[in-house]
Amino acid sequence: MPRVVVDVMLKPEILDPQGQAVQRALPRLGFEGITDVRQGKRFELEVEGPVDDAVLARVREMAETFLANTVIEDFTVRAAEPDPAPDAGAVA
Amino acid sequence: MPRVVVDVMLKPEILDPQGQAVQRALPRLGFEGITDVRQGKRFELEVEGPVDDAVLARVREMAETFLANTVIEDFTVRAAEPDPAPDAGAVA
Repeated sequence: MPRVVVDVMLKPEILDPQGQAVQRALPRLGFEGITDVRQGKRFELEVEGPVDDAVLARVREMAETFLANTVIEDFTVRAAEPDPAPDAGAVA
Repeated sequence: MPRVVVDVMLKPEILDPQGQAVQRALPRLGFEGITDVRQGKRFELEVEGPVDDAVLARVREMAETFLANTVIEDFTVRAAEPDPAPDAGAVA
């Protein structure tokens, strides 16, 4: 089934305590070189029928009114790429 | 600064109560045609220096050991695309 991806991230000027917690933990785990971490939400929506401009516009409306708090969050909407093989964790 | 994106989603066979809650709410808000919703996490990591294979491998290690629970989650790691203008919510 065709899917649409909505990524919701805090606006750059908004403090991201979750991201900061991750960033502070990384050096303790031996991972250097990460100067900033931002954490947000990813929604994958399965849609009936092809993903055309009308569908993307509808999903944008959903994101604006329901999936994101546009006072503090930005969002992007796009047709999902064909399924990349997940990097890890997939049980064969 | 160059960024790497890590998307963490529940494995397809794992129940996603958050996604189901969103899916049940959409028709009540007047949004039809969405057959499934999956919700996950998106991390944006700012890295020192260019995003090369070594950096991507390190971030994959971080995802495997810390950002994702690979028993129930899959993750993908990729270099961030150049900043698309956010769809909405950006204050001019």
